[in-house]
Amino acid sequence: MFTSETTVRVRYAETDQMGYVYYGNYATYYEVARIETLRDLGYSYKKMEENGVMLPVLENKSKYIKPGKYDDLLTIKVTIPKMPDVRIIFKYEVFNEAGDLINIGETTLVFVNTKTGKPCKMPDVLHDILIAYYQ
Amino acid sequence: MFTSETTVRVRYAETDQMGYVYYGNYATYYEVARIETLRDLGYSYKKMEENGVMLPVLENKSKYIKPGKYDDLLTIKVTIPKMPDVRIIFKYEVFNEAGDLINIGETTLVFVNTKTGKPCKMPDVLHDILIAYYQ
Amino acid sequence: MFTSETTVRVRYAETDQMGYVYYGNYATYYEVARIETLRDLGYSYKKMEENGVMLPVLENKSKYIKPGKYDDLLTIKVTIPKMPDVRIIFKYEVFNEAGDLINIGETTLVFVNTKTGKPCKMPDVLHDILIAYYQ
Amino acid sequence: MFTSETTVRVRYAETDQMGYVYYGNYATYYEVARIETLRDLGYSYKKMEENGVMLPVLENKSKYIKPGKYDDLLTIKVTIPKMPDVRIIFKYEVFNEAGDLINIGETTLVFVNTKTGKPCKMPDVLHDILIAYYQ
Repeated sequence: MFTSETTVRVRYAETDQMGYVYYGNYATYYEVARIETLRDLGYSYKKMEENGVMLPVLENKSKYIKPGKYDDLLTIKVTIPKMPDVRIIFKYEVFNEAGDLINIGETTLVFVNTKTGKPCKMPDVLHDILIAYYQ
Repeated sequence: MFTSETTVRVRYAETDQMGYVYYGNYATYYEVARIETLRDLGYSYKKMEENGVMLPVLENKSKYIKPGKYDDLLTIKVTIPKMPDVRIIFKYEVFNEAGDLINIGETTLVFVNTKTGKPCKMPDVLHDILIAYYQ
Repeated sequence: MFTSETTVRVRYAETDQMGYVYYGNYATYYEVARIETLRDLGYSYKKMEENGVMLPVLENKSKYIKPGKYDDLLTIKVTIPKMPDVRIIFKYEVFNEAGDLINIGETTLVFVNTKTGKPCKMPDVLHDILIAYYQ
Repeated sequence: MFTSETTVRVRYAETDQMGYVYYGNYATYYEVARIETLRDLGYSYKKMEENGVMLPVLENKSKYIKPGKYDDLLTIKVTIPKMPDVRIIFKYEVFNEAGDLINIGETTLVFVNTKTGKPCKMPDVLHDILIAYYQ
């Protein structure tokens, strides 16, 4: 099973007047964590899209355990819980600098052919990188 | 059971390079829909916060059925499925101008005393407004 | 000279922990005001883009006079100070509900052919709508 | 004169359907660059705010020279052109990975006492750090 870690520094723009990270901004943190996870594997989402496969979101879930605060350096642990096929699932655990788990999330995305707009198989290169972790 | 409808026009800022509404922006649409739903009931979230009760999010879920597109006038149907207590649940159905259901979501929020940071009862005024819908 | 007015309600997502509208969000308010101004003229930016002309921003300036606050219904007065050619300038004055001028801004955009990526003339339809205001 | 460099990776959330970084998002990049510049000097904006001084924006200007693109690792050169007093000015030059200057900007901020809401002197600690660069 593949796991990875990314850090994100909370920006002023991402806080709200409650003094917390606005709840919708975790989706962006998850995006950063997914993309950096793929980059750690030597895989570029940007190039995948240039090659005609995009990855829109089908489903997203978040639980907010503690507030994220301005300037916190958050650590996001990302897991791909099973070998992807047409869909890929990412799970996230977000920790603050004190080591507290502040947020958990899960996103399901689908590989889509940019030209046809139809779901398609995961690109072979990504398949070949990931298969080693699920045997 | 209380239901309400709000419209939101998709902004350019909210699209991404896929040409879709970025998935994290639905959380903002839900926020607008929740606040307008309360306003339709004659209740101001802003004043509630000024009176010392805030409403942070505990949980948020979204399913993305069809893409939202730039300049679409989206209609958001909001339901409060049961009489709130310390927590309040909102359900959303988002429709595009063609009438297609493009997104469904659900958010759980908790009433919190701004000074103590502890969960608290729903304000009496809101209770008295809502109770009529759940008898 | 063409002028128009649009209203925008400040969203929670747009506030920051200072309790003010985050300074970068005025650019989005300006965008909404520009688009609604064109719509008031019977012109759709969306259709212009579908017809192969887009309008990226060359320059943007803002002065922040008073803070914007959560839930304020802001009024944005938009002016097109002179007849556009390859470029179009919009000026904005943002007022809060008390009628205070809280922000002024100016954006210069350029008509660009989507296929070639080169600057181009303003579409004839828009020219013919605007010319009446500058004679 | 103090100068510093920060890098920011363009997020998918920050692109728009033109395939460019949305123009309003440069304000957030400037914020990140300002804060990291202060951190490089050993100064924490977060602590300054906790100590009762905040730094709202008075004026912001941007010129957009070339589009920013998804996944680009942007380099932001920050300059504080003169010794600050009640106001502090930051200038920015944003470069893409090819080394092209894509954006320039300038922000004027004012030191404000959080309790009184009135402009105030720059905190002594920051004064003492910066004075060495302007003699």
